[in-house]
Amino acid sequence: VKGKILGWDVGGANIKVACLGDDHKSDPAVVEQPFPLWREPESLSAALAKIAERVADARDVSRMAVTMTAELADCFATKREGVAFVLDAFRAAFPGIETWAYGVDGRFRSTDEARQQPLEVAAANWRASATLVARTCADALFLDVGSTTTDIIPIVAGSVTVQGTTDPARLLSGELVYTGALRTPVCAIVRSVPFEGRRCRVAAEHFAVAADVHLWLGQIQENDYTCETPDGRGRSRSEAGARIARVICADLEMLGPADITAIAEHVARAQVNQIKSGVRQVMRRLGPACPRVAVLAGQGTFLGRPAAEELGLNARDLAGEIGSAAARAAPAAAVAYLLSDFLFGAHV
Amino acid sequence: VKGKILGWDVGGANIKVACLGDDHKSDPAVVEQPFPLWREPESLSAALAKIAERVADARDVSRMAVTMTAELADCFATKREGVAFVLDAFRAAFPGIETWAYGVDGRFRSTDEARQQPLEVAAANWRASATLVARTCADALFLDVGSTTTDIIPIVAGSVTVQGTTDPARLLSGELVYTGALRTPVCAIVRSVPFEGRRCRVAAEHFAVAADVHLWLGQIQENDYTCETPDGRGRSRSEAGARIARVICADLEMLGPADITAIAEHVARAQVNQIKSGVRQVMRRLGPACPRVAVLAGQGTFLGRPAAEELGLNARDLAGEIGSAAARAAPAAAVAYLLSDFLFGAHV
Repeated sequence: VKGKILGWDVGGANIKVACLGDDHKSDPAVVEQPFPLWREPESLSAALAKIAERVADARDVSRMAVTMTAELADCFATKREGVAFVLDAFRAAFPGIETWAYGVDGRFRSTDEARQQPLEVAAANWRASATLVARTCADALFLDVGSTTTDIIPIVAGSVTVQGTTDPARLLSGELVYTGALRTPVCAIVRSVPFEGRRCRVAAEHFAVAADVHLWLGQIQENDYTCETPDGRGRSRSEAGARIARVICADLEMLGPADITAIAEHVARAQVNQIKSGVRQVMRRLGPACPRVAVLAGQGTFLGRPAAEELGLNARDLAGEIGSAAARAAPAAAVAYLLSDFLFGAHV
Repeated sequence: VKGKILGWDVGGANIKVACLGDDHKSDPAVVEQPFPLWREPESLSAALAKIAERVADARDVSRMAVTMTAELADCFATKREGVAFVLDAFRAAFPGIETWAYGVDGRFRSTDEARQQPLEVAAANWRASATLVARTCADALFLDVGSTTTDIIPIVAGSVTVQGTTDPARLLSGELVYTGALRTPVCAIVRSVPFEGRRCRVAAEHFAVAADVHLWLGQIQENDYTCETPDGRGRSRSEAGARIARVICADLEMLGPADITAIAEHVARAQVNQIKSGVRQVMRRLGPACPRVAVLAGQGTFLGRPAAEELGLNARDLAGEIGSAAARAAPAAAVAYLLSDFLFGAHV
């Protein structure tokens, strides 16, 4: 018996885990849990243990694969410090379980080795997902629009062919666009919005986030709004509308629903344009070798799809290939599959 | 004896008070206190009482003048709710003291009247300062670059001649530009920064603020950095540098001082350009009637001065006219002077 494998994607605001059953073949069980790491880093290890319980009995788990972006959280002075902290939390939470860290070079490392090479294991989740996608799509742009960020990863002739591997290099290359379906502050997306038929400057405050915009527009439902609300109030449509009004320092006594919709549509369009700018940059670099297919994943496929289609790409959903839960938590499922391959040989 | 007058400017993140002595003529005593209202609104009244103690014995205070922007804080669902809350806090803190609220129309109102007209007394602080400036400068653009926002208020032939009075209308007209010397998140100022000779996208996270940029560049000192740091760490130059590095998801093991300086200079320049865009819009509206003098106030005069000068305006410091403490807390000093005028007749 190979035993169950847990795949982890530990972000700064969300933790995702996927559990591969004993056969390592059937659809993984997936759990996503918001966890604002920067607020209480000391409780990470307890959180990991609790989340694991929701997908498997720890005694049945033989191995774990970890990818992370949590090292970027500003409770850590450096990525080195962040990587070590996360690996320590795994050791504390699961003392007996063999744990492997996935790297931006596509290699698994022991936790001791990973600790020595923090830049190799920091923010490698995109490579895990894209490597999984490459198994079934030899030529594709993998477009994963998450809660916070968007990864645009080219797969050419079966290989992940990126220009950047570190986060800064990926922000430069267009392979990482820091916009997402939920957590992105509206003031980081637009400088102005339509109001009274003109362009109105916005408040540089954490008054509303992308989740408010997409909830207002009906692209997500209240239970998809898994991040915190900026004002600590609820997730109803009218509460989201009040937050959107505050973006121009107004309130629901000053603005009507049509005003809010105009602002929300403008912000959603700006996010599609941000994603398009990254995709365009990647397409330009690849030239004629660029794939014509986009494989969409993440909570923000409703942003990724128009971005891809407006650039002439043929959009497909990853969910159709690996199931919708696994597609939303793609990196977690991917590292679990990849670790199984690494240890027992490819099985797909 | 007229008794002392306290002038208050209650913002969402800072409280400023100015105390006019018994003669209502000599320089006011001024205190500024950071107070993140949205975090603990219930302690506002205690905070007001404590701040007042630092400038005067409450028994010597005969009257108070209040202007506010705190009603915009997102702990209040509407401006109406926010205005009432702030006025209640004054009543609780200073039960015996006559209190007046200043309005965007330049009138003082009793607190009962103010409560009925929340949009009149919301965010009127710019009018108080500009009215004070108009006493000595009959033709000027008053340019107040605060910790969070910039007011651009034209004074023509001795009168404050604005296009907008509410915050949204002022954001539309260019008279309010939501950028400032301390609290503004870097991700709300720029979409990209220079890195390795190219333009690098930035993280849409609250990783660094304007204070980090201006501290790094030497425009402010550690004790000027009065707002909270985004990561809860200190205010040293290297801690500010680490926050700036995080804007492109990097750290001080990846970037050197020259990289940080290039990013910081780009952000500071973008702030000057934001202010210029507001000033230009106001100048365009006024046409030939536009004053050629800019009167600078606030903590961000180092941003306001280049903006004014590059547009051909003759820049002067308000500090030279009313003292530097009063110029930094201009609205608080102004409402105190204006209330004295209103009750006892103009004395300047």
